[in-house]
Amino acid sequence: MRVAVCQLDLAVGDLQGNRASGVQAIVAAAESGADLVLLPELSDSGYVFSSLAEARSCASPSRGNPTLGEWHDLASQHDLAIIGGFCELGEDGKLYNSAACVDPTGVRLIYRKMHLWDHESEFFSVGSQLSPICELMGAKVAVAICYDLEFPELVRLLALQGVELLAVPTNWPATVAPTDERPIELIKAQASAATNGIWIAIADRGMTERGVDWTGCSTVIAPDGYPVITPLSAEQTGIAVTDIEPSRASDKSVTARNDLIRDRREDVYRVVVQVDPPQPNGFNCETTLESFLDQR
Amino acid sequence: MRVAVCQLDLAVGDLQGNRASGVQAIVAAAESGADLVLLPELSDSGYVFSSLAEARSCASPSRGNPTLGEWHDLASQHDLAIIGGFCELGEDGKLYNSAACVDPTGVRLIYRKMHLWDHESEFFSVGSQLSPICELMGAKVAVAICYDLEFPELVRLLALQGVELLAVPTNWPATVAPTDERPIELIKAQASAATNGIWIAIADRGMTERGVDWTGCSTVIAPDGYPVITPLSAEQTGIAVTDIEPSRASDKSVTARNDLIRDRREDVYRVVVQVDPPQPNGFNCETTLESFLDQR
Repeated sequence: MRVAVCQLDLAVGDLQGNRASGVQAIVAAAESGADLVLLPELSDSGYVFSSLAEARSCASPSRGNPTLGEWHDLASQHDLAIIGGFCELGEDGKLYNSAACVDPTGVRLIYRKMHLWDHESEFFSVGSQLSPICELMGAKVAVAICYDLEFPELVRLLALQGVELLAVPTNWPATVAPTDERPIELIKAQASAATNGIWIAIADRGMTERGVDWTGCSTVIAPDGYPVITPLSAEQTGIAVTDIEPSRASDKSVTARNDLIRDRREDVYRVVVQVDPPQPNGFNCETTLESFLDQR
Repeated sequence: MRVAVCQLDLAVGDLQGNRASGVQAIVAAAESGADLVLLPELSDSGYVFSSLAEARSCASPSRGNPTLGEWHDLASQHDLAIIGGFCELGEDGKLYNSAACVDPTGVRLIYRKMHLWDHESEFFSVGSQLSPICELMGAKVAVAICYDLEFPELVRLLALQGVELLAVPTNWPATVAPTDERPIELIKAQASAATNGIWIAIADRGMTERGVDWTGCSTVIAPDGYPVITPLSAEQTGIAVTDIEPSRASDKSVTARNDLIRDRREDVYRVVVQVDPPQPNGFNCETTLESFLDQR
């Protein structure tokens, strides 16, 4: 499976321009032979909203969503899958920081961010469901968005459900790390990949938006915890492509006697899900969902 | 609080020599003004046993334990606390890969490793209790041993109980990391510190034992996930000292609106303890335990 992570320079509120940046990246990824293209968090709206009204003006319902529709056209045209963030207007009238996976058969997965960062809570409501899991080319794929990835419980629960590739659209505001140290978000991502023996793909923003610098570091991390793409610098935009073997994530052994999953002491501790796992939006990712897009 | 991590060169089976190495390091740490001295896993017995008989010959009961007794003498003499690993013969006749915290008042904490690495299961039985928590100079301190640290559930549960400093005696066998990459064990430790906003101190082995090279990387990691001591190289032995502010771990805020602990979505997932929390060895760390050592 060839994965392309796209580090984009977006402008908050410029839906048309942002979607065009996404299209450009998806086409470039297709030309590189990508099977899966990953875009950043809120890739259609941008991130640094100045008001709820501005955020609301950027949001669309998931059914008939113009961003997802464009992705579906490109997915069909180039026979690939696209995962990226979009600004969702819920059927309940609330805004969600969401991500979708779209392939030639339709929308395969929608997930609403569960852990909101800083000012996001002024604009967005939280999701309360783990990401659905969909199969792409035989690989089990799920989504987490940005700050979600910093909660090991979440990644563990997805790994326990068999996820092999966790796709992470993100907008990591730049923070100050000591000289020669990686951003802590990337270190946490590496640890989560290695702890669970899964692939983690990350697409962040590059450049600056309304005075906010981004971390960059878009990359793909192997199940051993090491990046297979040198993390992109904060000043870079563009795509980076790598071939991965999702099935490597099905082998959790670390020695002849040790296994990352079985070695957990479930007799002593356990991560439990507190809620039933219905899908968001009344959406079942196990069915093919062309109808989901027909309404646009 | 001044913390000294001691990276030692030990020899399996040489109890006298290993204890002497421990004493030497503790005295050097005392001369550096240390309040807490951390020694590696199985610091009295060494690690690379060739048979169960050999391991058994190195084990002593925790009550009246010669290693802990020596630490108590040094702790009293230099007014400091010592945490380190020792080879424990349980009251049930089984061997445990254990660690203790000893201060001038006596043994404050005993913990038995819960996650055994590779051949260890041929020699040791597993513990089934989280580390007790003891207060040292007002700081809440607990212990994890080596592979334990790679299970985020364990660290999370200790952080939820208020642990500010997690002391980790370890013996990390060297593994191959890509060029310019840190050992994954250290990356996981950094992520665990930052995920929970706690201090993590690590004392590993240096040099080689029966053909096994060690990772080194003894260090102290701050609640932001970054080492405050440059991790020691695998070829180094000796002590490294740093001053820490344990109370930094009581502030879990990361932005004005975000908190590492409160931001967990306990309505969606939760780490639960499956067992009652009695202490190992009928041992209650909240009482002063001079009596525990009187039997030696």
